[in-house]
Amino acid sequence: MSINWSERIAQRAREMSSSAIRDLLKLTVQPEMISFGGGLPAPELFPSEEIGAACEQAIVEAPGSALQYGPTEGHAPLREMIAGWMHDLGMRVSPAQTLITSGSQQALDMLGKLLIDPGAPIAVESPTYLGALQAWQPYRPELVPLPMDDQGLQVEALAEVLARGVRPRFLYIVSSFQNPTGVTLAPERRQALVELAGRYDLPIIEDDPYGELYYEGTRATPLAALDCQLYGELRHVIYLSTFSKLLTPGLRVGWMIAPTGLIDKLVQVKQGLDLHTGSLAQVAAYLTCRDGLLTRHVPVLREVYGQRRDVMLAALHATMPAGVRWTHPAGGMFLWVTLPDGWDSAELLGRAISHQVAFVPGRTFYPAGDVINTMRLNFSFSPPELIKTGISRLAEVVRSYAPSGQLPL
Amino acid sequence: MSINWSERIAQRAREMSSSAIRDLLKLTVQPEMISFGGGLPAPELFPSEEIGAACEQAIVEAPGSALQYGPTEGHAPLREMIAGWMHDLGMRVSPAQTLITSGSQQALDMLGKLLIDPGAPIAVESPTYLGALQAWQPYRPELVPLPMDDQGLQVEALAEVLARGVRPRFLYIVSSFQNPTGVTLAPERRQALVELAGRYDLPIIEDDPYGELYYEGTRATPLAALDCQLYGELRHVIYLSTFSKLLTPGLRVGWMIAPTGLIDKLVQVKQGLDLHTGSLAQVAAYLTCRDGLLTRHVPVLREVYGQRRDVMLAALHATMPAGVRWTHPAGGMFLWVTLPDGWDSAELLGRAISHQVAFVPGRTFYPAGDVINTMRLNFSFSPPELIKTGISRLAEVVRSYAPSGQLPL
Repeated sequence: MSINWSERIAQRAREMSSSAIRDLLKLTVQPEMISFGGGLPAPELFPSEEIGAACEQAIVEAPGSALQYGPTEGHAPLREMIAGWMHDLGMRVSPAQTLITSGSQQALDMLGKLLIDPGAPIAVESPTYLGALQAWQPYRPELVPLPMDDQGLQVEALAEVLARGVRPRFLYIVSSFQNPTGVTLAPERRQALVELAGRYDLPIIEDDPYGELYYEGTRATPLAALDCQLYGELRHVIYLSTFSKLLTPGLRVGWMIAPTGLIDKLVQVKQGLDLHTGSLAQVAAYLTCRDGLLTRHVPVLREVYGQRRDVMLAALHATMPAGVRWTHPAGGMFLWVTLPDGWDSAELLGRAISHQVAFVPGRTFYPAGDVINTMRLNFSFSPPELIKTGISRLAEVVRSYAPSGQLPL
Repeated sequence: MSINWSERIAQRAREMSSSAIRDLLKLTVQPEMISFGGGLPAPELFPSEEIGAACEQAIVEAPGSALQYGPTEGHAPLREMIAGWMHDLGMRVSPAQTLITSGSQQALDMLGKLLIDPGAPIAVESPTYLGALQAWQPYRPELVPLPMDDQGLQVEALAEVLARGVRPRFLYIVSSFQNPTGVTLAPERRQALVELAGRYDLPIIEDDPYGELYYEGTRATPLAALDCQLYGELRHVIYLSTFSKLLTPGLRVGWMIAPTGLIDKLVQVKQGLDLHTGSLAQVAAYLTCRDGLLTRHVPVLREVYGQRRDVMLAALHATMPAGVRWTHPAGGMFLWVTLPDGWDSAELLGRAISHQVAFVPGRTFYPAGDVINTMRLNFSFSPPELIKTGISRLAEVVRSYAPSGQLPL
């Protein structure tokens, strides 16, 4: 008789379930499909040659660092370089406060393991990054969803929650060009949020993978920088970013900047997870950036992705029926479409796939799973012509769809 | 006022503490130090050129796979290749049962998260791999330590525990050339263990990073293979291995073979941890092995490490006073020294470091932390001349040491 594994699963893992959406999206690898579903950078822009050369160079220059076991904290020269960048962004932090993680996803898991007790409240944007919800579900927090608008998180709503006496272990926020909505937290709200953190000793996890990918205006000031300015040191904010959107995701190299008092515990947590992040990937990321690759490459990303965003916005404007709204992101990789009330975007996805276009239904991004009429569209992956064709297909599906009891738009 | 982070730490993370041993071992990077402390492969044997070439080739041949986000399960051709190796070892398993992990350390964390409820018993060898204890501590199991001898785990002791009605969530065992002792589970005990697993529906986590590194005799048959033979399919055993000891640790690529009923949950767990293991590292590992690197390289490791083991055994025999005993591993990277009763190897380490030789005191490998007179010596890292010098220094320290109230040996 076989072991009945479903009886052997720990309580924390029981609520995990295979996502129906994920299964649907597996269909989107068909060749004729135009998918706005994945959160993927454009592969044709990958600096492949530079990374290949950096791997070679890493093995020649530093075989001891690139191929052997390494420190849990990360490759020291890479940590120093990143701490320098953070300094340029206004953070008063040292390399000792800079940890290399296996992508930002690992940082989320580390922080969940370190800071969430079962049943403890954590405050999140609604909607928020799905991967954070997945990372933290096993730690069984009580989610406190906070509303957003086109200026980002409604900080007043957080203030009310805190005033009521709720004490979240932390607030999680994607501060710029949020995944999934594309919305950015406005400057005055950033200031208010950091003041609020000080008033209530509230830790903030600031996830900022897209901050450098702005297509208008200037780089937003991270909450971590404002925290340093207001309090003289990094006090409340744990800042996450990654090479995944700036170089390539396949390296799985991200970083976390944390207040001094958290570093030792974070290192202990990471040691249990994977000992350290891939050495070769770290040294290669270091060498390409030391040689100035980001300075050359990020402007290219801004130009190409900015153009794709414009193409998608224009195509939506040209083809979508009245009653459908969408965000106008100033950067990043995503925009967010809101269908009329009562429409179910998951149902729409089934039809869209048969018309060879795909997106991610918004429901799973809501901590309470209570909003069904939104969808996330990625604009960084597909070239302009495919964006036009795909949005046209999607508009056709939207026009022909109506929930039961309603007329089509 | 700063946040008092120690008050914000989740219960599961509170018992983690910085290891005094780890701090001591940081001293061992001094240039004149001979360290038998790290569990490191010999860097001068790393197939650096082949790995560098494979990275280049990966980026040319498969940039979409090597640099982009990839499937959580791992790079499909790599999974197929590994499933083929496992088949050659006697396991009847498919690529679908083969998951790529970020080193075996991540597999340990995944299994802890999936299978350990707080307070649930898990059975481990005593002593056992320290990294497993660290990975599982946050999940707060009740450890059930099982005695070992020079034939490996005393399976009879496990049988008694099971007969008493204790139902461990799993048994964890390093079946060949165990870390830390170097001891290998004897064939008849392997058979008995797999029969016991069937009788009690006991899951077994078989950690086998060293199995291919045998210096006498033949490759031991994994418990996973015996499980398949006895029950017609992989039923009780979750098998872990890694490229860390066969190619290089810096890639952070390992694998896990699991019964079919566990795969979906394991994939969900891993998705929350890091989305997937580094793509470039996976493709590079695949390409080097497809081109036959392991077939050429592993015999070199066996020859060099086997010689180093012999040199260390001879040096111990030549220099250590009577009353000190050690294991005679048939493979792997470690041997295990037992000092007279009452001797404290942690105290000895302080003196050893001042004599420029280092090792890991055995106490931390014991689940109950109740044995203080052992030490782990690594023989794979240091060249023969350094092994001789280091053991001679260590013997001198041992000869001059005596715990309070005892005469030196």
